[in-house]
Amino acid sequence: MRLSQSFARTTKTISADEQSLNAKLLIQAGFIHKEMAGVYSYLPLGYRVLENIKQIVREEMNALGAQELAMSALQPQENWQATGRWDDELVDIWFKTELKNGQNIGLGWSHEEPMLLLAGKVAQSYRDLPIAVYQMQNKFRNELRSKSGIMRGREFLMKDMYHFARNLEELEAFYTRVQEAYFKVFERVGLKKLTFLTYASGGAFTDFSHEFQCLAESGEDTIYIDRSKKLAVNEEVYTDEVLNSLGLKKEELEQAKASEIGNIFNFKTTKAEQMGICFTDEQGRRQPMFLSSYGIGVSRLMGVIAELFNDDKGLIFPLSVAPATIYMIAIGGKETIKVSEKLYNTLTERGVAVIYDDRAVRPGEKFADADLMGIPYRVVLNDSTSASGRYEVKGRTESEPKHMDLKALIELSTSAMVK
Amino acid sequence: MRLSQSFARTTKTISADEQSLNAKLLIQAGFIHKEMAGVYSYLPLGYRVLENIKQIVREEMNALGAQELAMSALQPQENWQATGRWDDELVDIWFKTELKNGQNIGLGWSHEEPMLLLAGKVAQSYRDLPIAVYQMQNKFRNELRSKSGIMRGREFLMKDMYHFARNLEELEAFYTRVQEAYFKVFERVGLKKLTFLTYASGGAFTDFSHEFQCLAESGEDTIYIDRSKKLAVNEEVYTDEVLNSLGLKKEELEQAKASEIGNIFNFKTTKAEQMGICFTDEQGRRQPMFLSSYGIGVSRLMGVIAELFNDDKGLIFPLSVAPATIYMIAIGGKETIKVSEKLYNTLTERGVAVIYDDRAVRPGEKFADADLMGIPYRVVLNDSTSASGRYEVKGRTESEPKHMDLKALIELSTSAMVK
Repeated sequence: MRLSQSFARTTKTISADEQSLNAKLLIQAGFIHKEMAGVYSYLPLGYRVLENIKQIVREEMNALGAQELAMSALQPQENWQATGRWDDELVDIWFKTELKNGQNIGLGWSHEEPMLLLAGKVAQSYRDLPIAVYQMQNKFRNELRSKSGIMRGREFLMKDMYHFARNLEELEAFYTRVQEAYFKVFERVGLKKLTFLTYASGGAFTDFSHEFQCLAESGEDTIYIDRSKKLAVNEEVYTDEVLNSLGLKKEELEQAKASEIGNIFNFKTTKAEQMGICFTDEQGRRQPMFLSSYGIGVSRLMGVIAELFNDDKGLIFPLSVAPATIYMIAIGGKETIKVSEKLYNTLTERGVAVIYDDRAVRPGEKFADADLMGIPYRVVLNDSTSASGRYEVKGRTESEPKHMDLKALIELSTSAMVK
Repeated sequence: MRLSQSFARTTKTISADEQSLNAKLLIQAGFIHKEMAGVYSYLPLGYRVLENIKQIVREEMNALGAQELAMSALQPQENWQATGRWDDELVDIWFKTELKNGQNIGLGWSHEEPMLLLAGKVAQSYRDLPIAVYQMQNKFRNELRSKSGIMRGREFLMKDMYHFARNLEELEAFYTRVQEAYFKVFERVGLKKLTFLTYASGGAFTDFSHEFQCLAESGEDTIYIDRSKKLAVNEEVYTDEVLNSLGLKKEELEQAKASEIGNIFNFKTTKAEQMGICFTDEQGRRQPMFLSSYGIGVSRLMGVIAELFNDDKGLIFPLSVAPATIYMIAIGGKETIKVSEKLYNTLTERGVAVIYDDRAVRPGEKFADADLMGIPYRVVLNDSTSASGRYEVKGRTESEPKHMDLKALIELSTSAMVK
């Protein structure tokens, strides 16, 4: 994309009420726009980051055999009454509104109930189970406070997956596979090393739920980690009894702040029993379905990446999610511009995402914006590089540029893409 | 996809309150699920259709140089007050709700106001204009009645594009290009011949707005068409004065029912003046932006396609949007199953979308479901075809199958994909 023709504008003026680092960095870089507290729009460059993360999540969920679909955000009250979760006392983050005829509706903050109702129609027999479906959809949560940028939004993009099983063994087998798939996702977006499988409260349903907590100073959760075992315990279940049951020792644990980037709930048959959702087993008996649900905060992931990967010059995106691989700057006369245009076309034709900064601004501003946006490679062309046929290429975190010819540059940027 | 492992189930029992043909057909085929009146979820096969339509729309909008982004659905009241459109008297389809602190918010039913506010920040100078952005996003409209299935939803997928210009000439040049792009979209989804550029009320802003009306008995609009000129007039502006101004003659017009699948609004500078959204021109003066907006009802397109392309056996999807190219049925012994598995893998590896009906049900049920789902080609394998190496291939609307070898089948299905 040519920056002169892009709906992107870096800025140094951030509203004083914006407290979170991730939102500040992303607004400065022209990636997001704040509509109100906890509600952000995604500008073209930010939208690309979000789409890159979505695609990684999609590939790993498809690899599990899960099928993508799209539920409605508008939720009729009656679908949530059998489990008690329409009640504001039990679920205090509903946005509610009504139809013209006065019928109550809410905005989906999760989808266990409507998904289970749907599964009860689609999967009526044991032959139809086990099965998993997922969606990537904006969720709505009426949070009392929302000061963490896109790490906790009132409207945010979530991947939510639901698995319907005939028995606990099937549920647990899938549960284990999802844990592995989640770590693949976190590896691909650059967060695996910082992410700990964390035992948290299971609520009324089970002993524990599993969270995927990513270490971050700005995270809203406190966890206790065992680095050698790659495990953690959320402070909400940090008791001697729990530690014993998990074989963890208090003196080996380290307290840390973290952000919950994924979670897993095992509802067993509780919800199906409440809602009367059954399948017919091999003996013709009606049996309640086993439900488990699996979330990843897609826009939160983007927030955590911004929060963790940056320096005093701006964002530092991992290649896998960056909105472009190369930020190209031309400084010089007509010949350099000609060479730049040609390089831009060559790279673009090969599928390399390039931001070509063709704006009529000072070179210093271009260098600053390349860093602010956190694009992995900066390529500079000037009269001497144009003449030599070698380009100046600098990684975002490198201090010195390298010089390489077209072939090496193409190799670098296409191999980078594949990662 | 293997149908035995799919979250898809055809049904013959449709709720009695479902009145629309498109919803009946799509529910029967297992493509959508009704959550409440005017609110539908998209099951995996229906989701694929929607994604196929989205991709066609995306390609044509990108070809215009427009950039994709994503605005929030949650809308603060203050963004809609300068134009008066927060008022329920002026806009009677708002869904409104509130934050915990009592702050009023609405759900986006369109995005002119927030987009213009954003454009005012991103494009401050004449150098930044003209520019176009678009999104594909669920819109929320609190319709009094909703009886047209996915042709008029309370929650529906819309492509909305916004163009910001320095003057009327720039606006009109883009306006003309979008008309052409829209007809390309309608051609690709199979609706071009039935779609008429239609003059409709321009409201307070301009003489006319342009609608793209697709002839459909179930459409909610009445239009008067001139087939030779490929033009139409909406009944809301069907007056002698308007007909004269357009050079149309009453006696040459034909009354018809139609569904509005696209529209174009030319706001000129009205909204920018109301909201104080200006850019700095070459002389350093502040000038109001010219705004035009361009909608396509993506889920409505899917509804219209279902409504128009069907027979007494079910849906008939155009190749370009069908959830699969081939519906494969194996009838026979072990050898046939082996050949089927191989064919399924061969086609899938080549990127052909195949529904392999491997369910343990009667062949008659498989044939019926292939027709119900409207998949373009049905491929049947039995013991004699397995032995001969020639497959029985029938187009959805053909009465007799052809027999072809693997090479011909691959050619047919890959050339079909490209269309």
